[in-house]
Amino acid sequence: MDSFVTGADGIARSNEKAEAALRESYEALGASLARRGIDIDAMKRKAAEFAVAVPSWGTGTGGTRFARFPGTGEPRDIFHKLDDCAAINQFTRATPRVALHIPWDKPQDPAALKSYAEERGLGFDAMNSNTFSDAATQQHTYKFGSLSHTDPAVRRQAVEHNLECIEIGKAVGSKAISIWIGDGSNFPGQSHFTRAFERYIDSCKAIYAELPDDWRLFTEHKMYEPAFYSTVIQDWGSSYLAATELGPKAFCLVDLGHHAPNTNIEMIVARLIQFKKLGGFHFNDSKYGDDDLDAGSINPYQLFLVFNELVDAEARVPDFHPAHMIDQSHNVTDPIESLMVSATEIERAYLQALLIDRAALEGYQDENDALMASETLKAAYRTDVEPILATARLEKGGAIHPVAAYRSSGYRAKVASDRPLSGAGGGGLVG
Amino acid sequence: MDSFVTGADGIARSNEKAEAALRESYEALGASLARRGIDIDAMKRKAAEFAVAVPSWGTGTGGTRFARFPGTGEPRDIFHKLDDCAAINQFTRATPRVALHIPWDKPQDPAALKSYAEERGLGFDAMNSNTFSDAATQQHTYKFGSLSHTDPAVRRQAVEHNLECIEIGKAVGSKAISIWIGDGSNFPGQSHFTRAFERYIDSCKAIYAELPDDWRLFTEHKMYEPAFYSTVIQDWGSSYLAATELGPKAFCLVDLGHHAPNTNIEMIVARLIQFKKLGGFHFNDSKYGDDDLDAGSINPYQLFLVFNELVDAEARVPDFHPAHMIDQSHNVTDPIESLMVSATEIERAYLQALLIDRAALEGYQDENDALMASETLKAAYRTDVEPILATARLEKGGAIHPVAAYRSSGYRAKVASDRPLSGAGGGGLVG
Amino acid sequence: MDSFVTGADGIARSNEKAEAALRESYEALGASLARRGIDIDAMKRKAAEFAVAVPSWGTGTGGTRFARFPGTGEPRDIFHKLDDCAAINQFTRATPRVALHIPWDKPQDPAALKSYAEERGLGFDAMNSNTFSDAATQQHTYKFGSLSHTDPAVRRQAVEHNLECIEIGKAVGSKAISIWIGDGSNFPGQSHFTRAFERYIDSCKAIYAELPDDWRLFTEHKMYEPAFYSTVIQDWGSSYLAATELGPKAFCLVDLGHHAPNTNIEMIVARLIQFKKLGGFHFNDSKYGDDDLDAGSINPYQLFLVFNELVDAEARVPDFHPAHMIDQSHNVTDPIESLMVSATEIERAYLQALLIDRAALEGYQDENDALMASETLKAAYRTDVEPILATARLEKGGAIHPVAAYRSSGYRAKVASDRPLSGAGGGGLVG
Amino acid sequence: MDSFVTGADGIARSNEKAEAALRESYEALGASLARRGIDIDAMKRKAAEFAVAVPSWGTGTGGTRFARFPGTGEPRDIFHKLDDCAAINQFTRATPRVALHIPWDKPQDPAALKSYAEERGLGFDAMNSNTFSDAATQQHTYKFGSLSHTDPAVRRQAVEHNLECIEIGKAVGSKAISIWIGDGSNFPGQSHFTRAFERYIDSCKAIYAELPDDWRLFTEHKMYEPAFYSTVIQDWGSSYLAATELGPKAFCLVDLGHHAPNTNIEMIVARLIQFKKLGGFHFNDSKYGDDDLDAGSINPYQLFLVFNELVDAEARVPDFHPAHMIDQSHNVTDPIESLMVSATEIERAYLQALLIDRAALEGYQDENDALMASETLKAAYRTDVEPILATARLEKGGAIHPVAAYRSSGYRAKVASDRPLSGAGGGGLVG
Repeated sequence: MDSFVTGADGIARSNEKAEAALRESYEALGASLARRGIDIDAMKRKAAEFAVAVPSWGTGTGGTRFARFPGTGEPRDIFHKLDDCAAINQFTRATPRVALHIPWDKPQDPAALKSYAEERGLGFDAMNSNTFSDAATQQHTYKFGSLSHTDPAVRRQAVEHNLECIEIGKAVGSKAISIWIGDGSNFPGQSHFTRAFERYIDSCKAIYAELPDDWRLFTEHKMYEPAFYSTVIQDWGSSYLAATELGPKAFCLVDLGHHAPNTNIEMIVARLIQFKKLGGFHFNDSKYGDDDLDAGSINPYQLFLVFNELVDAEARVPDFHPAHMIDQSHNVTDPIESLMVSATEIERAYLQALLIDRAALEGYQDENDALMASETLKAAYRTDVEPILATARLEKGGAIHPVAAYRSSGYRAKVASDRPLSGAGGGGLVG
Repeated sequence: MDSFVTGADGIARSNEKAEAALRESYEALGASLARRGIDIDAMKRKAAEFAVAVPSWGTGTGGTRFARFPGTGEPRDIFHKLDDCAAINQFTRATPRVALHIPWDKPQDPAALKSYAEERGLGFDAMNSNTFSDAATQQHTYKFGSLSHTDPAVRRQAVEHNLECIEIGKAVGSKAISIWIGDGSNFPGQSHFTRAFERYIDSCKAIYAELPDDWRLFTEHKMYEPAFYSTVIQDWGSSYLAATELGPKAFCLVDLGHHAPNTNIEMIVARLIQFKKLGGFHFNDSKYGDDDLDAGSINPYQLFLVFNELVDAEARVPDFHPAHMIDQSHNVTDPIESLMVSATEIERAYLQALLIDRAALEGYQDENDALMASETLKAAYRTDVEPILATARLEKGGAIHPVAAYRSSGYRAKVASDRPLSGAGGGGLVG
Repeated sequence: MDSFVTGADGIARSNEKAEAALRESYEALGASLARRGIDIDAMKRKAAEFAVAVPSWGTGTGGTRFARFPGTGEPRDIFHKLDDCAAINQFTRATPRVALHIPWDKPQDPAALKSYAEERGLGFDAMNSNTFSDAATQQHTYKFGSLSHTDPAVRRQAVEHNLECIEIGKAVGSKAISIWIGDGSNFPGQSHFTRAFERYIDSCKAIYAELPDDWRLFTEHKMYEPAFYSTVIQDWGSSYLAATELGPKAFCLVDLGHHAPNTNIEMIVARLIQFKKLGGFHFNDSKYGDDDLDAGSINPYQLFLVFNELVDAEARVPDFHPAHMIDQSHNVTDPIESLMVSATEIERAYLQALLIDRAALEGYQDENDALMASETLKAAYRTDVEPILATARLEKGGAIHPVAAYRSSGYRAKVASDRPLSGAGGGGLVG
Repeated sequence: MDSFVTGADGIARSNEKAEAALRESYEALGASLARRGIDIDAMKRKAAEFAVAVPSWGTGTGGTRFARFPGTGEPRDIFHKLDDCAAINQFTRATPRVALHIPWDKPQDPAALKSYAEERGLGFDAMNSNTFSDAATQQHTYKFGSLSHTDPAVRRQAVEHNLECIEIGKAVGSKAISIWIGDGSNFPGQSHFTRAFERYIDSCKAIYAELPDDWRLFTEHKMYEPAFYSTVIQDWGSSYLAATELGPKAFCLVDLGHHAPNTNIEMIVARLIQFKKLGGFHFNDSKYGDDDLDAGSINPYQLFLVFNELVDAEARVPDFHPAHMIDQSHNVTDPIESLMVSATEIERAYLQALLIDRAALEGYQDENDALMASETLKAAYRTDVEPILATARLEKGGAIHPVAAYRSSGYRAKVASDRPLSGAGGGGLVG
């Protein structure tokens, strides 16, 4: 299966040189963790089980409203994208599922798409609908909204698009749909906040009504962009209200880049867990607005604090399985490299959170020993768990150093010959 | 009644000089509004009916953690404060109710306090409990929280303090209690978000259980301060969850200064109205953090947009009576002047919002005519309604120019002789 | 001259119905201002003299990285754009100059372009270079920067592009060049801050060396976008340093939308005036990130406070002539309407700032009478100066109600027949 | 010398149990670093040389404007504070200097103070003046400003206070004065930005004129608080202008908590280094406004990125010695513990920055390999350097685990018996 895209041989060769040093590091870390009462092999098993989905659209070079600077060998269709996703998974062994984006990835033959993916060791995560841009074939424009549009015909079109996403998802084995809309307003007065939200909920109810019993529907909030004065689902409060109106299969999706400056995101995660509405994540990082930088590249401690909540909930909350997805825009890097590194950073945060001495932490919390509570988190965070992650990868057939192995594989150059250069265009996202 | 504090004569004298010009302005504005189909006298009646409560604690000079610079003639007890509040109401005729803060204003004889207020034309608005600082007499410290403290004894103490506030409130004629707590954490890990929120809700339930049937309980969110990493009720989402857990008499209070940067506050107001949980407001303004500047002094258009939502709801929502309260810190001005001006700015925003051509606005919203929707709001906003406000004041016995009339009344100098100078202290709030 | 695009007849007809009411309002306002010691006719003359440049690129519908939703009748070349700019000026009589953007507006025959503009009553403002996207013909990509690129060949290409802009500008009668670059980084470590800034300054020196003596060069700061971790000119401090390194013909351009949340922009304006480096403005408004909403649509008081600084400086600073330009993105409105309204809002803020009683203000400032200082600004701000603006327009041949007159002129429908629909593209800006 | 406060015996005893494990960790880390070409002993020497000053005022429990919750055994005078600072230094061996705050720490006999400090192994860092609160003895109030006040008498008083600080500093062996003022405004219009800045610079020139030749003067910017609409030195741009006006002995101080949301602080550091005006740091951390949390407790990667700039400059910039000072508010922890941990976190960030492979980083920067540049920083950052820090402490006589050793020393209980409990007061800072 590996031979389709990268070749296990290449990975093995790249690992050869690094393995001795890794074994040494793993052993030293094992001894150190043992002194803290932690079994490194148990941690390694946790790492091996961890998975995060990659977005098909993330395999292309992203852009801004100013420009898009295409890379070489960008995928031109969903099959190319799956090849790239397979490569990511082969090197990292942490990304066995792909999130599709319709209509960008709309398959003519869903069954064939499913087979193509399966042959590459891939399955499908949440389906993502798109009513924030106009497809060439659609009747009504989304310029002034989609699911919350004032015109029922536009809303109906947007609902039907979502239903089509569910149909495709059923065919390829997905179990969830993520609904993010660009609806909102650019001017005070442009939109009646209450009526727009009522229309949104009504439209979502029409989608929810067709949701299979074993599916989940994710509502996703975003403070701004593409609407710049208001958005219909502006924050977790509105997302919670929407998911609650819809019913028990509706949950909230937290995209780390969609909040007001300074927001304590880990606390939002805790609230949604407590009220049984956390659906999952779109992982990325950001310094200013919603800029979709690589997960863990700007504020890795925040990512760790999010996983602190998740690991805490794993032990307390029955049947706790939030979706893990990456959603980033790779404007200046090779998307495959960014996705490999991001998957690793997310896994790293998870491992670090697993190392937290929770009994001690609870004790400090009960005694209001703020300093030692903080120190307890930091002690886990500053543990360099790379030897665990690398060993887990190695033992699953992945690469000790994914980026180096990928670079030496020559994958990008190989696929570039089959994939014509895409245009710079006016910037923005690529379908 | 006026003679207690300022004297109606002084107001009348100050009005004499200004009245002719006011009549002229009122007439010109009336003609202009008539051309827009608006009856200025109807607007004047609306202005006359408008009221916003003043906070007893706002009559003292505020401070920061760095310093407090006391003014002359600051009130030293609740009777002084009521005198000041009466003065504010006499000049503005817009602030007939006072919000008390316990223990700062704790009366030895509530009935006497009520009479004292009534003699000055004042009633009482929401009661405000204080579990964010330690009173000299209390057994347990609130250093690590109050209603959400890990120690049940502390929580019990905080609950009982709130119950005492209700008792006092019943005696003085209040119908609501505002619960704002300083609980939170300064370090990641210090507090378990979920358990702290559970404890908070449990404590509030104990208070709610004793709430009279005709009372409302207000939960108030704040992003930070005095806790600087997390707060228990950090945003409207948590406030909504708390109020919903408590029951139909619990509502959310929106303090304009308690949000993340860039937050669209008017949208939060709309959401809380829609889901029947808007309790009311703490009005103020701010440029950076929660700094409690005078309402309308920094971003008056935002205040107008909040009232746009309220006026819109007045027509749509049955039994819609959110509480209007000012909550500010007057560090560099005479608090009486700031409260008079703030009350006027709030009333101004209300009047401007009343002038919005709602039928036209709805039409533009339905047609997605963003520009004309925006222009419709701006046309109302840029109307100078001061002649309406001033005439309403004049006809109710208030001052055409409240600040000028107050200054010429010599009130501050008069009371200063009875009130010893307070200390600069280490800064902060004053009880 | 008017007949080229809109027809003075249409404007006259649209004014007929509104003129009587305007005269009445003007008279009433004149009486009211006279009571404040202000001569309304003098104000009207100031309004008539006021001008703000419109950006050629602003006449097209803007977009985001997600999508662009084109309007009908969008300009397809610089001649169309000039037609639209002429229409804006005809209705508002406040926008006699156009800012060009090269290569989007690159003329084959600059002299012909100049004549075309002059025939429509238009001149040219600052030239704008573009090294933030790749033109089809250029040799090197700007993916990793332009004037600050690590590769001297790329820097040279970017310098030469700017020199070409100056050449074109000389031919069409411009007197300034605005340099805004997208250079920066998306990841910590990607760029060496100091070396990048050194390279930027070196490149600008090469441009500055060719700047005609009677030209100005504007450096423009922006906190983020398209670079999302760092930008080379991230704030006014770096812009000031760059302009100072370059010399006396270099000045800083303040775009209102390019700052960190909560920034006190009017204070930056004051600092740049004080240190003789204020070059001018890109006017717009924003609620969150840099979203280029219409000037005055979100926080009009802030716009007024900026003009408070400018009017204050007019009286104090010799030879004070900052450039006034609009720079916005019109995603959901007709760009012509947004530009007309924005020009009017900017002029409104200027007029309101002229009404400030500066002698009184200075007195309050000297006495630290914070409340009356604030009230003095607000008294000017809340004056509805629309009758002055409208009368100034009327007397110069413009429209009393520009948007209404424009709509009834049928201009957009007329030009739409000559202009094919542009594509939705991947979003973003349009050339 | 140790016997004064804590006793070296206690430290030795606490180290005994931990030493074996530390030796093991150090050896393992040494092997791992050796594989990366890094000599761990050289790193340990760097750690041993590192020092950061502690603020005398940080030894007391801080507060907010709402409340201050005093701890037990708080220092009541400067001698107590020096005892606490000595303890911090004994355990950490990284804080040999103390920053004084006048008038809070004003010595009656500076020579005696110096001796007292020297006996405890302490010297003095920058002097800190206080013109943001009123001392009991001063003639004029700073309610409306100090160095920038409109009244020359107030400015003179503030200048003289600063001169007195220099005099005291000379007597105790300080070589720098930090000037931070609370001057600013709470209302638009209250202050004339330009005149206030001119007055500030004039006042500073009077101080600068008396500055000894081997001293440095630090200007410190802050976005807001205690002034909430504008501050006189609002950002690094104004700080740079002020320092430049003053002369070559004036430098800018960067307090990590004094910036707008989202600000790229490490870039400001780079700019100030480049233009030779970086004076030093006030280290702390924050999540929202200026809240002075413990350094490294909220965003440790940002602290690392700041030190990345410093380590980079060490190699490039001759005579590069920025001042390192902690400036925090310890509201819920034992101040001694917070200061020990903070000193360690700052040292940790320095050590991690030393581990950056700078040759590789420069190569990636030159090639625009954004991903590998980012990975290069992260590889250094995720190295757990605690064994180096602990060994350096151990070898200098400090504690392997400072907090644990301090707690078992019983220091706080010991001093509590000599120090009466301080009052809760109205909140805020403590002198």
